[in-house]
Amino acid sequence: MSRTMMDETFLNPLLVARAVDAALDEDLGRAGDITSAATLPAGAMARAVMRARRLGIVAGLPVAIAAFRRLGPELWIEERAHDGARVEAGDALIVVEGSAHAILGAERVALNFASHLSGIATATAAFAAKIAHTRAKIVCTRKTTPGLRVLEKHAVRSGGGANHRFGLDDAVLIKDNHIAVSGGIGPALRAAKSAVGHLVKIEIEVDGLDQLDEVLREGADAVLLDNFEPETLAEAVRRVGGRMPTEASGGITLDRAAAIAETGVDLLSSGWITHSAPSLDIGLDIEMG
Amino acid sequence: MSRTMMDETFLNPLLVARAVDAALDEDLGRAGDITSAATLPAGAMARAVMRARRLGIVAGLPVAIAAFRRLGPELWIEERAHDGARVEAGDALIVVEGSAHAILGAERVALNFASHLSGIATATAAFAAKIAHTRAKIVCTRKTTPGLRVLEKHAVRSGGGANHRFGLDDAVLIKDNHIAVSGGIGPALRAAKSAVGHLVKIEIEVDGLDQLDEVLREGADAVLLDNFEPETLAEAVRRVGGRMPTEASGGITLDRAAAIAETGVDLLSSGWITHSAPSLDIGLDIEMG
Amino acid sequence: MSRTMMDETFLNPLLVARAVDAALDEDLGRAGDITSAATLPAGAMARAVMRARRLGIVAGLPVAIAAFRRLGPELWIEERAHDGARVEAGDALIVVEGSAHAILGAERVALNFASHLSGIATATAAFAAKIAHTRAKIVCTRKTTPGLRVLEKHAVRSGGGANHRFGLDDAVLIKDNHIAVSGGIGPALRAAKSAVGHLVKIEIEVDGLDQLDEVLREGADAVLLDNFEPETLAEAVRRVGGRMPTEASGGITLDRAAAIAETGVDLLSSGWITHSAPSLDIGLDIEMG
Amino acid sequence: MSRTMMDETFLNPLLVARAVDAALDEDLGRAGDITSAATLPAGAMARAVMRARRLGIVAGLPVAIAAFRRLGPELWIEERAHDGARVEAGDALIVVEGSAHAILGAERVALNFASHLSGIATATAAFAAKIAHTRAKIVCTRKTTPGLRVLEKHAVRSGGGANHRFGLDDAVLIKDNHIAVSGGIGPALRAAKSAVGHLVKIEIEVDGLDQLDEVLREGADAVLLDNFEPETLAEAVRRVGGRMPTEASGGITLDRAAAIAETGVDLLSSGWITHSAPSLDIGLDIEMG
Amino acid sequence: MSRTMMDETFLNPLLVARAVDAALDEDLGRAGDITSAATLPAGAMARAVMRARRLGIVAGLPVAIAAFRRLGPELWIEERAHDGARVEAGDALIVVEGSAHAILGAERVALNFASHLSGIATATAAFAAKIAHTRAKIVCTRKTTPGLRVLEKHAVRSGGGANHRFGLDDAVLIKDNHIAVSGGIGPALRAAKSAVGHLVKIEIEVDGLDQLDEVLREGADAVLLDNFEPETLAEAVRRVGGRMPTEASGGITLDRAAAIAETGVDLLSSGWITHSAPSLDIGLDIEMG
Amino acid sequence: MSRTMMDETFLNPLLVARAVDAALDEDLGRAGDITSAATLPAGAMARAVMRARRLGIVAGLPVAIAAFRRLGPELWIEERAHDGARVEAGDALIVVEGSAHAILGAERVALNFASHLSGIATATAAFAAKIAHTRAKIVCTRKTTPGLRVLEKHAVRSGGGANHRFGLDDAVLIKDNHIAVSGGIGPALRAAKSAVGHLVKIEIEVDGLDQLDEVLREGADAVLLDNFEPETLAEAVRRVGGRMPTEASGGITLDRAAAIAETGVDLLSSGWITHSAPSLDIGLDIEMG
Repeated sequence: MSRTMMDETFLNPLLVARAVDAALDEDLGRAGDITSAATLPAGAMARAVMRARRLGIVAGLPVAIAAFRRLGPELWIEERAHDGARVEAGDALIVVEGSAHAILGAERVALNFASHLSGIATATAAFAAKIAHTRAKIVCTRKTTPGLRVLEKHAVRSGGGANHRFGLDDAVLIKDNHIAVSGGIGPALRAAKSAVGHLVKIEIEVDGLDQLDEVLREGADAVLLDNFEPETLAEAVRRVGGRMPTEASGGITLDRAAAIAETGVDLLSSGWITHSAPSLDIGLDIEMG
Repeated sequence: MSRTMMDETFLNPLLVARAVDAALDEDLGRAGDITSAATLPAGAMARAVMRARRLGIVAGLPVAIAAFRRLGPELWIEERAHDGARVEAGDALIVVEGSAHAILGAERVALNFASHLSGIATATAAFAAKIAHTRAKIVCTRKTTPGLRVLEKHAVRSGGGANHRFGLDDAVLIKDNHIAVSGGIGPALRAAKSAVGHLVKIEIEVDGLDQLDEVLREGADAVLLDNFEPETLAEAVRRVGGRMPTEASGGITLDRAAAIAETGVDLLSSGWITHSAPSLDIGLDIEMG
Repeated sequence: MSRTMMDETFLNPLLVARAVDAALDEDLGRAGDITSAATLPAGAMARAVMRARRLGIVAGLPVAIAAFRRLGPELWIEERAHDGARVEAGDALIVVEGSAHAILGAERVALNFASHLSGIATATAAFAAKIAHTRAKIVCTRKTTPGLRVLEKHAVRSGGGANHRFGLDDAVLIKDNHIAVSGGIGPALRAAKSAVGHLVKIEIEVDGLDQLDEVLREGADAVLLDNFEPETLAEAVRRVGGRMPTEASGGITLDRAAAIAETGVDLLSSGWITHSAPSLDIGLDIEMG
Repeated sequence: MSRTMMDETFLNPLLVARAVDAALDEDLGRAGDITSAATLPAGAMARAVMRARRLGIVAGLPVAIAAFRRLGPELWIEERAHDGARVEAGDALIVVEGSAHAILGAERVALNFASHLSGIATATAAFAAKIAHTRAKIVCTRKTTPGLRVLEKHAVRSGGGANHRFGLDDAVLIKDNHIAVSGGIGPALRAAKSAVGHLVKIEIEVDGLDQLDEVLREGADAVLLDNFEPETLAEAVRRVGGRMPTEASGGITLDRAAAIAETGVDLLSSGWITHSAPSLDIGLDIEMG
Repeated sequence: MSRTMMDETFLNPLLVARAVDAALDEDLGRAGDITSAATLPAGAMARAVMRARRLGIVAGLPVAIAAFRRLGPELWIEERAHDGARVEAGDALIVVEGSAHAILGAERVALNFASHLSGIATATAAFAAKIAHTRAKIVCTRKTTPGLRVLEKHAVRSGGGANHRFGLDDAVLIKDNHIAVSGGIGPALRAAKSAVGHLVKIEIEVDGLDQLDEVLREGADAVLLDNFEPETLAEAVRRVGGRMPTEASGGITLDRAAAIAETGVDLLSSGWITHSAPSLDIGLDIEMG
Repeated sequence: MSRTMMDETFLNPLLVARAVDAALDEDLGRAGDITSAATLPAGAMARAVMRARRLGIVAGLPVAIAAFRRLGPELWIEERAHDGARVEAGDALIVVEGSAHAILGAERVALNFASHLSGIATATAAFAAKIAHTRAKIVCTRKTTPGLRVLEKHAVRSGGGANHRFGLDDAVLIKDNHIAVSGGIGPALRAAKSAVGHLVKIEIEVDGLDQLDEVLREGADAVLLDNFEPETLAEAVRRVGGRMPTEASGGITLDRAAAIAETGVDLLSSGWITHSAPSLDIGLDIEMG
């Protein structure tokens, strides 16, 4: 990981380095890049420019750089854009110079990270644009690609979104099943409050205004309003009256985002931005030395 | 990994087990499922049914089962569908019974694997349907999600597609940069043939009919026709005359797939089916005991 | 990990299994238990009883069991006490029967986990007893033994304490250096609120009543009152007036705990209970078969 | 690991690097140091001085340095004290300058290693001082904190103690159970001698003078005199007459150490110095740039 | 791994680095090089020359260098020979200068890699010399030392041999059991062709001319002629007529190699060169500074 | 690892399990056994008999079994011979029944372990036979195959040999370089004795009778007589007079073994038995169900 990335955002750099290693191992297999080994002269040099081929928001450039760096510790690398930047087709993102074997060996891994994460940032930004006139924010969920959650959370922030839980352990989110087994909203909230430490927030999911009223009586750190129609959502926001953040989930599409955000809700949570965002087209133009 | 999965398909079961562990670690973090720990009674039992919520082709069910099994070795699990099956909204895929803590702890990981991989299978099947009247097959690329390549390759097969290289090391694919540095198609092919073992295939990318003619003179195991328009592609296929498999790449969209396949080309390769396929909506209905 | 442990408490069972493996590897080295291999007949059977040799609160029994189970999958094991139980010298905690090689091979690792974690639980319980007449709770810190944090956090809960952050990533705790660099309490709190997600709590450390007043104006999720004398602490608690949890830190000794807790503060945080608690004396009595 | 540490002491530097990584992972979690990320400007610089806050013997400074180095490869670090040095409250141990994000991200891990290991060194030194007028040495046992044995063994040496076995595999230690099953001291010793290689030492535990006589008849590399009162111990030492090292164990407290050492025994083994030594108070004073 | 090695040959450098780490861990154990720590002064410097003590072909020098580099990042290292070079007794292969602790700590691991891999290269070269007057090549098999396959494949290439499959997943090799279960050569070949991707080659083993004829009718990418006598082999080669590579296996000894190669077969496969080649005697002459 | 193996010999079972996993990963790659997947029906059953094809001493059967078990937890496996047994060509070693996919997937790994380790056991036994009329034993060295040391040490014991050090950390072996730098034999031995714990043995290498005399004056736990001719060796043994074990090294060949052993030396150490022993031919006969 570049130092820059860790400094400016929330990521354990050791986790990121392991993700890069896993991806390189997956691509290099046992024998490595046999095409380059067979066809390039030893010591061949190259210059490569990673470019956006579509308009979008970039994310994951430090991860791409880490992939090049891992195979070519002596590569000269320049970052031409930063995560979160809006780029247009043709814009240079990264320039790499040095061993052609290292550049070609890491090329696909670097591109796969950058295009996947930029796709998420771009999708998030599209949502953010739809609701920019409101006070609401777009947040991601735990519906992420297995193994890439920390990077995808970062991509969401790069796109102007905010993060929900990173995992099951960093906040309580009480859902319908927990409520049912605990004997209701009151018992569930009281059980959670007595069990967790003072720095753990508790959010609870409700599916109607009656449940919301019960939550407001008991108190919670946030409430998730699941599958509320806009008008009911507006009423829910009114009832909450700013006492806790309100989050709308279920059926949050680009088409409906503005209407939902205009109810005054604080957060719109979308699984789509992480599990279904198309990747951003990014390529590597290589000039062999 | 269930034994079944390994037997019927191409996967290193140890790799798959590690992917499951990595995903569970990512979701459980240090403290694990604190919501369930706080709100469920010790020993609570549950019955859960994983169901498709949209029509599609499923893939990754054995991976989802492995996730449940990892946290709940004593869970009773029934597989109601098999990878590659076409399911409709509401169809049961997996039934799990036992410890509610284990089921809820593994729920999101199991769903993330199943919906991501089923999304790829479904996208692949859509392509396959478009070209079913031809002899062409849809194949995937190395544009996969970092860390999940083996599973995504499996999902492509589940959707009726075929696999391209699993990594840089299992076949030679000579691209424009390799050709340029080697001094042309002839030198590149000859270098590759002399360097690799007798069980490694060599494919070469060409961007025009002139290059193709040179490949035909030199001989190769396959030729990749990059960004050919359908009419030129048809001419290329004619010139190859069955001497080697022909693969079309570049701009392979659902809309254009039929026209491209009708040129007689053997393979259509698509990065989209792995890097941009939307996930299939799959949920878990839980009845607490 | 036994299922029981995961169900009833907050722990990622995969992390715990790795801690057990690391400890066994450390003790077995390359050649394993060469004394038993040299002196015990193949197939020797034994019965072992793990017993407390001092009065205390036990913790880590499931970890000890996991160590035995790892080397002897077929051992018969009975848990005679549960984490959090008060035991007296001579009380049986675990009974194990089966392969003498497996029991002796895992003995020291099992005892090291159980006595270390029970020491922490016992120390925590001593604090908890001192303040039982107040509303305050004893909480641990991040001053834990490297590599054992999740288990030590569990031991604290077993002893009647509560947990603070598990790591740098699950809550914000703004200290003097952060305040200094950010330009003051107001800018620091506002920066934190705008940067983190809605499920992340923010606590801030203050070292005097002036700083506290500023925190109360800005709002926070908790306030850490560092090195306050009891009388100032009482005034601080009065000023907070229940608007947020108050935590006292610095110089929290068994002798001073009651006086501090009687100020009305919510939490007393102690590094001592994890970094300096003496281990509880626990032994294994073995009868060879 | 710094080169220095490996050169001067007994440690596998790869093991130490893994211990540092494990501790950093444990503290950074998925999202890393979110407080610093939220409140510090990108590129903020700092100067930090790690200081002893109590008199003691330091150990683990190279490990603390390795933690800073891991997150901040470009930090400027100066070691002001060396493992084994006696320091007083206020003495500087390490000075670090550079990225504030790196320093604060590694701070707690660095301190946890240094204070834990220095606590062990300090406790060992206290024992060593009590017996300095005799020929006896204080030695540690396998009653170490799981996962930290190599570092704790190093801390014992830093405090003036000596090491016992590092694990079950590097020497034979025949205890009562082995004797019972083997059919007595003679058969046990003979079995061990015939089974192990010529570079493996054999020690045997005895609980009375009769057993000792049998050991002297059979021959061994060392004898462990368990729970002997000082007068019996003196007699045992007399009987051994220098033919093999004698080790006293059981009830070795600071109060009793001198009396035991004065019997002429060679070694006093103490689990307390590793499993129950209170940590040494060490802090980090930070000046933000 | 040195960059050079990856550039010029087929290897995943991450795998190689892990092999080096595993070997160092195995040799250093927990406590490291206790002899050097006990007897060398801190900061001792040395100069070491790795020399061949027998005539042979060297391989694995970059791996040996990686071992030195891992323990001594600041060592000055010069490579005096290259993998694949023919060396005589006394020839210098590598010169290393710097920390004596680092050099002695890595010495045995570096020598074990170099002498094992050079042994394989030398054995391979002996075969290659026997058949140099023919068009045949010597190829290795999957009968390699567990854990070292990629390095052993590299050693075979260094000795002038070629590589067969790296594992079960990179080509199809249909053997007698597969044929039996599939219902014959035709069904087996057809099943394989329909199952695998277009870049996977298919070889099939036959044990007689009848089976060969069937393979020729069906078509395959290569044919393995198992345990054919030279005269039958010559007939087989004649029947194949260049339509696919022919590989002879079974009883390929140095004595018989020329006769077999003179049949016109393309490949002679030998397990012996990897599983039974004696190591090449290589030593390290050290001058302490 | 089977329980049996751990019980009867010296091995850390967790290390062995990792060696098996590494070997399977190496052979299965990403896609697994594609030949079996393509040609065997799902659910195909088989019966396989692992047989010696040459006379020899077997070792590693529990490792081979562990490989089968890892891919086929439900296989029925019978061990027909035990490590250390003398077998003749055709003797059954292991019988396995169950999933043909699991058996074929693990076949090569199981055979590679068994034939490599049995080769070492057989070579060791050949030495042991040559010196059976003397009191000497054959011992191995650290010249082992990287990554397989613990298993190779076990194979040596299976063949009737004894083990030398497992690594640099479990005993001191002072060589010429250490002596030179320390200022002579006396200083080196004294430095070692003062540095290491009471359970670490110290051996020293001498290259002449003068050095030996100095060692006898200083005292050591063993002496290595390097490259002594038989007559000098006999004189050395006479001078030692049983005061410490004597070890002959350098030029220990099968031809010279008896003459060397007849000098009365205790140990003959041979690198050849681990680094150059040809593998024992072992095959797997499979009957498909």
